[in-house]
Amino acid sequence: MTELPTNWQHYVIGIVIYPGMTTLDVVGPQTVFSVLPNVKIHRIWKTLAPITGDDGMMIVPDTTFADCPPVDVLCIGGGRGQSASIDDAELLDFLKAQGDNAKFVTSVCGGSEFLAKAGLLEGYRAATHWAMRPQLAKLGIEVGTERVVTDRNRMTGGGVTAGIDFGLAVAKALYGEDIAKISQLLMEYDPAPPYDVGSPEKAGPELIEKAMQYMAQKMGAIL
Amino acid sequence: MTELPTNWQHYVIGIVIYPGMTTLDVVGPQTVFSVLPNVKIHRIWKTLAPITGDDGMMIVPDTTFADCPPVDVLCIGGGRGQSASIDDAELLDFLKAQGDNAKFVTSVCGGSEFLAKAGLLEGYRAATHWAMRPQLAKLGIEVGTERVVTDRNRMTGGGVTAGIDFGLAVAKALYGEDIAKISQLLMEYDPAPPYDVGSPEKAGPELIEKAMQYMAQKMGAIL
Repeated sequence: MTELPTNWQHYVIGIVIYPGMTTLDVVGPQTVFSVLPNVKIHRIWKTLAPITGDDGMMIVPDTTFADCPPVDVLCIGGGRGQSASIDDAELLDFLKAQGDNAKFVTSVCGGSEFLAKAGLLEGYRAATHWAMRPQLAKLGIEVGTERVVTDRNRMTGGGVTAGIDFGLAVAKALYGEDIAKISQLLMEYDPAPPYDVGSPEKAGPELIEKAMQYMAQKMGAIL
Repeated sequence: MTELPTNWQHYVIGIVIYPGMTTLDVVGPQTVFSVLPNVKIHRIWKTLAPITGDDGMMIVPDTTFADCPPVDVLCIGGGRGQSASIDDAELLDFLKAQGDNAKFVTSVCGGSEFLAKAGLLEGYRAATHWAMRPQLAKLGIEVGTERVVTDRNRMTGGGVTAGIDFGLAVAKALYGEDIAKISQLLMEYDPAPPYDVGSPEKAGPELIEKAMQYMAQKMGAIL
């Protein structure tokens, strides 16, 4: 490991947040971003009023679409509430305008559907939450089932917790391997999943069906 | 896998949040909690004014100490700002009062130091972030280096990302293995860390030193 430089390149990172998003989708990579050498992170929405994630946590945006400077890294996550915003013209216009000029256009989980709707994934492979793969494919996007899909300057992560792996991939792309390793150690990212069921391939059809039924019931109870 | 019941036990989960906390410490387990069958989650602090995590994200508490009902699961995380609140009498009193009656007294990352200061870990083994192990040991607590340490009704996780493994352990303790597996699949928790450096044992002394120096410099730059 070589000596770390001190004269780091500055990057602006824009994380778009919205009502009903899965907070962890963006908090995973944000945690990586927050220990990077020289970044400014914006959490962006239409207004600065608090939004509520699908886990019930209230988050306050710190930057509006109107006030957001050009970002180097554009990122959006998914969530059980994403369908309510997926055709929002103001949101899609913002993504398109920023995405056309960003160094990296990125997403975690169902967030890739927003990128697709904004026209930012045409001709690119992209990842999404396993349950949303058919939905993304229907938009004409080639769906990758890897945990992180990098296709030129599009970096997209799989479902929810994949945001951590995705964040470390972005860290490496921006600042190199040493900083990515330091970030991983600082976050004590030495995962020990209790079961070997974290992907549909590993979970198998019976557990997948049970999980889908369970969520349908739970969502029914909430709505 | 057996049929899932529909008549689920209700649990109240209290997550204490504070300025300078590491958001991911609590958002990891919160994501698991948010898909559990029948829980009410409170995010608790002194007032309902937004707090800012050490990743810069603003979060709005939804319950004050004064208004919080008795919780079944008490949880607190760590963070780069924890030293400012670690001797806060109002916070420690709240933890003690709730912890004495909770079904599970829990923490992620440096959060175990709060439990220790509140007298809730006397005679228990507990986990913490790897960089804070000596600090916890100094308080007379037996430090476990596993990713999740369960000692009777104390469940404590290691650093930051360990909160996901911890959350799944709590899910199993509250609702059994089927629900824990469903939660893991829904969160697509099939981690693929890019490097094998996520614990101090795996990272080795050179990377540890570099990470500590890096953070010291970065914190100096922030302060």
